Amino acid sequence: MSPILAPVALAKASRLINHGPTVLVSARHDGVDNVMAAAWACALDYDPPKLTVVIDKATRTRALIERSGAFAVQVPTAAQAAMTHRVGTHSRSDEPDKLARAGVGLFAIDGHDLPFVAGCSAWMACRLIREPHNQEIYDLFIGEIVGAWSDPRAFADGHWRFEHADPALRSLHYIAGGHFYAIGEAIDVAAQDAPD
Amino acid sequence: MSPILAPVALAKASRLINHGPTVLVSARHDGVDNVMAAAWACALDYDPPKLTVVIDKATRTRALIERSGAFAVQVPTAAQAAMTHRVGTHSRSDEPDKLARAGVGLFAIDGHDLPFVAGCSAWMACRLIREPHNQEIYDLFIGEIVGAWSDPRAFADGHWRFEHADPALRSLHYIAGGHFYAIGEAIDVAAQDAPD
Repeated sequence: MSPILAPVALAKASRLINHGPTVLVSARHDGVDNVMAAAWACALDYDPPKLTVVIDKATRTRALIERSGAFAVQVPTAAQAAMTHRVGTHSRSDEPDKLARAGVGLFAIDGHDLPFVAGCSAWMACRLIREPHNQEIYDLFIGEIVGAWSDPRAFADGHWRFEHADPALRSLHYIAGGHFYAIGEAIDVAAQDAPD
Repeated sequence: MSPILAPVALAKASRLINHGPTVLVSARHDGVDNVMAAAWACALDYDPPKLTVVIDKATRTRALIERSGAFAVQVPTAAQAAMTHRVGTHSRSDEPDKLARAGVGLFAIDGHDLPFVAGCSAWMACRLIREPHNQEIYDLFIGEIVGAWSDPRAFADGHWRFEHADPALRSLHYIAGGHFYAIGEAIDVAAQDAPD
């Protein structure tokens, strides 16, 4: 079940979500694993890398994160759209076998006691930076990215390779009602940005 | 200079950035207008709609927002990639005619004393929700979306129409070094998500 993983330098980890993909958030506490989808995740800092993610009070994953102080954020692929939507719309509280029914495969990464989701294009291990006011008022959680890895077919040497990879590896960008967009074509403007 | 604007219901405003586009942030104070690019912007709530945006202390736009308590967030198009990159990499502090040099056209919307950027696909007027701890420690700003509009060729009736529109209207998703991706193809999974 373990995918091919390439380490991503922490200084480049924010690039894994810089383009605004919908992510999967996973956590573990006291023998319980869960996975949810989050469209509202965002990079927050480069060094040390941090991110924000909005996690509703109704989710089971939130309680796991609050208790364990850790979570994983991963970037699902176009091939995982149905699974991503399903884990985002069903709660483990109502459906104890949610992960099995959604076809979620979990794997381990040495040194991190977190459930990572197989088949994604990138993975980040996060340490919760506790900010009770943000968590309570805004459902806003801040994590420091303490480990990052990618599927090198999708992200290698600090760069996404969507334009060269299988379209099934493209990131997902959720709107509403089961409607996603995959990430699209590359646009490079460095040459057009020369000082004038 | 005024584009065709269609009002967006506030209950649907979060959809304008749900897919994680790079945005332009603009503000006005005491006769000074400025515009910057922000890849780190994210929806935060539905009702009332809110968003977060990370704004570095070095930016001139930040001071305008802190003083005026208001800002606009707009979604630039693929056709605006070079302009978006330029306003994201040059400061008005160093280049007083930054907006003219970047080719930024501004227009007004009745009832909002903000500079809106012409040629975008969507616009949001935001009221700053002051959170000094977040602003100081994380450069994280929270805004309540108090008005929203779209170019109906790109977003109409509460839905993005990228798959039916001119590709020049697609949203931009920045990575680094002048490298963007445009949003891509639609993926619908609602039918696959029927309860089993």
